Amino acid sequence: MASQNRNPEIRKDTVNNRWVIFSPARARRPSDFKSKSNTANPNDNPLENCPFCLGREHECAPEIFRVPPDPSARWRIRVIQNLYPALSREIEPSSSVRGGSPGPGSTGDVAISGFGFHDVVIESPVHSVRLEDLDPAGIGEVLLAYKKRIDQLRCHESIKYIQVFKNHGASAGASMSHSHSQIMALPIVPPTTSARLHSMKEHFDQTGRCSLCDIRSNDLLIDESAHFISIVPFAATFPFEIWIIPLAHSSHFHDIDGEKAADLGGLLKLMLRKMSLQLNNPPFNFMIHTTPFQDTCSQLPYAHWFLQIVPQLTVVAGFEMGTGCQINPVFPEDAAKVLREVRISS
Amino acid sequence: MASQNRNPEIRKDTVNNRWVIFSPARARRPSDFKSKSNTANPNDNPLENCPFCLGREHECAPEIFRVPPDPSARWRIRVIQNLYPALSREIEPSSSVRGGSPGPGSTGDVAISGFGFHDVVIESPVHSVRLEDLDPAGIGEVLLAYKKRIDQLRCHESIKYIQVFKNHGASAGASMSHSHSQIMALPIVPPTTSARLHSMKEHFDQTGRCSLCDIRSNDLLIDESAHFISIVPFAATFPFEIWIIPLAHSSHFHDIDGEKAADLGGLLKLMLRKMSLQLNNPPFNFMIHTTPFQDTCSQLPYAHWFLQIVPQLTVVAGFEMGTGCQINPVFPEDAAKVLREVRISS
Repeated sequence: MASQNRNPEIRKDTVNNRWVIFSPARARRPSDFKSKSNTANPNDNPLENCPFCLGREHECAPEIFRVPPDPSARWRIRVIQNLYPALSREIEPSSSVRGGSPGPGSTGDVAISGFGFHDVVIESPVHSVRLEDLDPAGIGEVLLAYKKRIDQLRCHESIKYIQVFKNHGASAGASMSHSHSQIMALPIVPPTTSARLHSMKEHFDQTGRCSLCDIRSNDLLIDESAHFISIVPFAATFPFEIWIIPLAHSSHFHDIDGEKAADLGGLLKLMLRKMSLQLNNPPFNFMIHTTPFQDTCSQLPYAHWFLQIVPQLTVVAGFEMGTGCQINPVFPEDAAKVLREVRISS
Repeated sequence: MASQNRNPEIRKDTVNNRWVIFSPARARRPSDFKSKSNTANPNDNPLENCPFCLGREHECAPEIFRVPPDPSARWRIRVIQNLYPALSREIEPSSSVRGGSPGPGSTGDVAISGFGFHDVVIESPVHSVRLEDLDPAGIGEVLLAYKKRIDQLRCHESIKYIQVFKNHGASAGASMSHSHSQIMALPIVPPTTSARLHSMKEHFDQTGRCSLCDIRSNDLLIDESAHFISIVPFAATFPFEIWIIPLAHSSHFHDIDGEKAADLGGLLKLMLRKMSLQLNNPPFNFMIHTTPFQDTCSQLPYAHWFLQIVPQLTVVAGFEMGTGCQINPVFPEDAAKVLREVRISS
């Protein structure tokens, strides 16, 4: 079962239509995998300089809403504008592209205005509280804040897709150590999303089934809750990558209700705690992969949202950049077994 | 002209069919861009432990060839097997896939054996010599070593694509500080390559022209030589990304001859020196993007090889991982201007 006794294998991620190389020769034992850049550094972005902390709200970009909404109560969550947004809510959306479609005499260059929204979700008023430190209902509240902000943004006719993501740790892209996540509303359907939808539709057309509904308990399972399962995907792009998938078919994250949000909060908490324990509190990212809004019907039979968690244990180098193929030294079955067996004292 | 006065813009890389967000709010001034992790660290992987150094050939995996071939002469370049290969030359190539194509009753999981080649090109016998320290003809010899190894590997009927790449600096994925590059021969056409070919063919079908032949001098040009130009691409994925493109239409890198290799060696040297001076010797990757071998005709009218250089100045975070869209804080016109104006004392 140990990776060392295996031959390398190339697996296709049929959800994303990507190849991944599983390469035991480059592996340590899966149980020995630890992050070298533990993010538990009390010195970076310390309390006294943190605009995300309670009482320093005036140092932030404008607030969009808070939870609870009562301005005289102590807030638990704040959704604010990003002070350094990658996209601008203040410029005109492009109706057409500069350069236009390629034709004789055109260089083929295509550009549109960088209209869009880039918000920040402050997950706790307390600097030292990590997302996984909240109780399941508290994490559920953060998830419901994502849902509420998506419901506001998806009404905008120029917005095609909304990406919710969290960067934890400087080497995973976090510029603030105070626990937060981000929401970006885009005027395009991003390439990863298009490729995923195309690939899932192809699976559905060939089999009559949704590829994520097909996943049930097997040697890739880590845990499950009332409404969700957590797995290491068959062709995991990164070592110890985790997907949390709703058991009932659902195209859009924003269809989540309070009960399911708290249930997902519990499973997300468990996954983050297992990852932190097993892998030495690594930098990580999580991303919610949902379905674009331009479809008239809200439920697509082939499109199923999920949450992807990626601990940052490897670097992206020339091979990965050149080919779009990742090299993963840990077989998914081994990663799932290790994560399944992590003991959490509650 | 400064990025700060611009609005964000979303540009399409029509060669690779990818969107890139150009986000001036997240930028320093382009001329202030410096790597924080300068790779000039004399302590990592020191001379006395380096198996790539002259006289320690017995500590390496088997040699494939050396330049010059005479075993009694001092070598300038060695091509060897990778001691920790991501793919194995010793297993059977898959003729079919495990799991098969998705159909009723199948989970849709697809896997093939990890057959392939993973070689290392040691670019100099001297530990402290970087690729850019060699003269143009010396760099040309390294390029001709790539060509020779590709010519050997492309005869193998299971090999569909060969990726040549260089990782410089630990955070760019280099595990050895002695200057080297790598060659991986794959039994699949990688996703980035498929997407690029598809996109270039689409441009050709619509315009009758090759998209890279169309690029000539403009505000994206950095430098040119007898047979090549260097540019920052219109939708550069990363800050200060550079493409070196052959002026005459050519589908395959391995069609390069001695004269063109030395000419490319000179332009590559100039780009690496400019990047090193301007950006504080950053970690970097370069990749040669060529055309798969399964096509019967060696020259495709729409497929044009090029060399991509990427200094590692940013991290890949949740947004980029989730969407496949990069956020680039430096507009290509600004990066090209900065690089054009770097003065090299020769």
